[in-house]
Amino acid sequence: MIIDCHGHYTTAPPAHTSWREEQQAAFAAGTRPPAYPSISDDAIRESVEASQVRLMAERGIDRTIFSPRASAMGHHVGDQSVSQRWTEVSNDLVARVVELHPERFTGVCQLPQSPGAPIADSVPELRRCVEQLGFVGCNLNPDPSGGHWTSPPLTDRSWYPLYEAMVELDVPAMVHVSAVTNPNFHATGSHYLNADTTAFMQFLQADLFRDFPTLRFVIPHGGGAVPYHWGRFRGLADMLGRPAVEESLLGNVFFDTCVYHQPGVDLLLDVVGTDNVLFGSEMVGAVRGIDPRTGHHFDDTRRYVEAHGLSPEDLQKVYEGNARRVYPRLDALLRQDRSPRAEGVPA
Amino acid sequence: MIIDCHGHYTTAPPAHTSWREEQQAAFAAGTRPPAYPSISDDAIRESVEASQVRLMAERGIDRTIFSPRASAMGHHVGDQSVSQRWTEVSNDLVARVVELHPERFTGVCQLPQSPGAPIADSVPELRRCVEQLGFVGCNLNPDPSGGHWTSPPLTDRSWYPLYEAMVELDVPAMVHVSAVTNPNFHATGSHYLNADTTAFMQFLQADLFRDFPTLRFVIPHGGGAVPYHWGRFRGLADMLGRPAVEESLLGNVFFDTCVYHQPGVDLLLDVVGTDNVLFGSEMVGAVRGIDPRTGHHFDDTRRYVEAHGLSPEDLQKVYEGNARRVYPRLDALLRQDRSPRAEGVPA
Repeated sequence: MIIDCHGHYTTAPPAHTSWREEQQAAFAAGTRPPAYPSISDDAIRESVEASQVRLMAERGIDRTIFSPRASAMGHHVGDQSVSQRWTEVSNDLVARVVELHPERFTGVCQLPQSPGAPIADSVPELRRCVEQLGFVGCNLNPDPSGGHWTSPPLTDRSWYPLYEAMVELDVPAMVHVSAVTNPNFHATGSHYLNADTTAFMQFLQADLFRDFPTLRFVIPHGGGAVPYHWGRFRGLADMLGRPAVEESLLGNVFFDTCVYHQPGVDLLLDVVGTDNVLFGSEMVGAVRGIDPRTGHHFDDTRRYVEAHGLSPEDLQKVYEGNARRVYPRLDALLRQDRSPRAEGVPA
Repeated sequence: MIIDCHGHYTTAPPAHTSWREEQQAAFAAGTRPPAYPSISDDAIRESVEASQVRLMAERGIDRTIFSPRASAMGHHVGDQSVSQRWTEVSNDLVARVVELHPERFTGVCQLPQSPGAPIADSVPELRRCVEQLGFVGCNLNPDPSGGHWTSPPLTDRSWYPLYEAMVELDVPAMVHVSAVTNPNFHATGSHYLNADTTAFMQFLQADLFRDFPTLRFVIPHGGGAVPYHWGRFRGLADMLGRPAVEESLLGNVFFDTCVYHQPGVDLLLDVVGTDNVLFGSEMVGAVRGIDPRTGHHFDDTRRYVEAHGLSPEDLQKVYEGNARRVYPRLDALLRQDRSPRAEGVPA
């Protein structure tokens, strides 16, 4: 089967998005936001069936690990209670998508981060999503300030309460920033990639995985600049007196295939190796158009992976095995699921 | 001939570096810094002959475009007058290296940037370095705050006074940040690469090169994450209603080859093409060790370029032609120079 580890609910119903605007306006005005709207099952079905579900079928993607829209997390907006409420309704909406299409989607949650707020305050929502909603992981924002980078590095002990819960629940985090207010950065054009590179270097510099040997992170967007500069990171580890990256990081850090051209995916698979790459497309996401050079969607990353010519064993790892290993709760779900698709029959 | 477009004076004599410490201490104490020390020609010769000059000879590099140490620019340190004085003495020291080895080095200057200071205040030092010291370009720091990104994007009109001078003098800028004080970032492991990616996306979003059709930038470190994510940038240009990157940017934006493994250099040359890549190594710089996989220095980038198998015409562009085109004042210097090496006889 083919699991896409990186999908966001970018097509949420307008009522959800409008409520967010009202919530922000209420915060600005110092008033209470209106009640969250009632959204029908049909509205939710419509929101994914013509886009994600259709494209998954067209591209032969069996299942997407699905989370709230990353750019809309907006942890910098309002205050901690604004983030808390927005996070809850966003995760609940993802849970409803999963409920309506349990064979297609598995949930990953947003966390109610807020600049300066202790990460421990995000743990209850993580528990709720994993234990009550059946989610299999979370998205962790290393920069809830929205491009001002005011939090400590991800390896700082202040993040440890979350990592303790992640280890206990056996769920990974995708490192994923959100929208930016710093005009230097474009969210999907530089901020996302910079955060990916930044997180990897933070992991390289510290002993986080000595403290948490089973903690796992997915660095999206093909790892930012990391695989392209693999020699630089190997050389920096050496210069800084750190262990080799293969040894110290590749048991805990994984990359997705959200790299939107053939040479990039080729480099990723060749350099990082098939044990640490999870298939992902971020469809429908940052780059939605059709590449005039190929006639196919930029984000149809399956084409690039297929064209790379991996062995069937390696292809299985990238498409399914690594995702089941990194997200053990997804693996458990699939083992319970008796449908033919879950048993590995090709779509 | 082979021109390395990216070398910094990372081996400056200790007296220079010590004076910088005294300058900072004096600023902190509110006193005047001591007089800048006298540094002998021998001390300068020694500082480069056992390192850059020896390695250039070993690697067959004929000439290095040489600038003050990037991580030491420290535009965030002290105030504008501290930056001004440090910049002057750092540029003067590079000029002395060039004077002692005119056949080996050509100067590029640091600018006396300071957070919040108008960029127009950097123009006199650019003029001095180009017109009096014979320098052929400058390093422009898009984030003089040292990792807090408090300046406007490079496409903002507040930067235009510098661009007007660059165009008039016909010199390019390498986009190069310096040390960081933000603990999220490691200077050479993430901040440099992030700045490269950030600058490219800023250029993509705006019409800077419509305003300055002859303005030229070199984005170092192989363009950060850009070539690896070339499809992403092409797709984003399309989504944002911007012209194709090949059309709008590649007349003005160039990348160096400071990518420290074979697959990265291969991707760079294949994806960006040989008209927009300048040979560079940043030797002696960020990554100084020997790659145990190859037995050669990580930063011996000539090996990767050679192994790529370009045609002689394309190799000439990457080694020499593009540098002479992007740095016309270097081209003019080489035309004046009657030495056999400058005439293209292999080293």
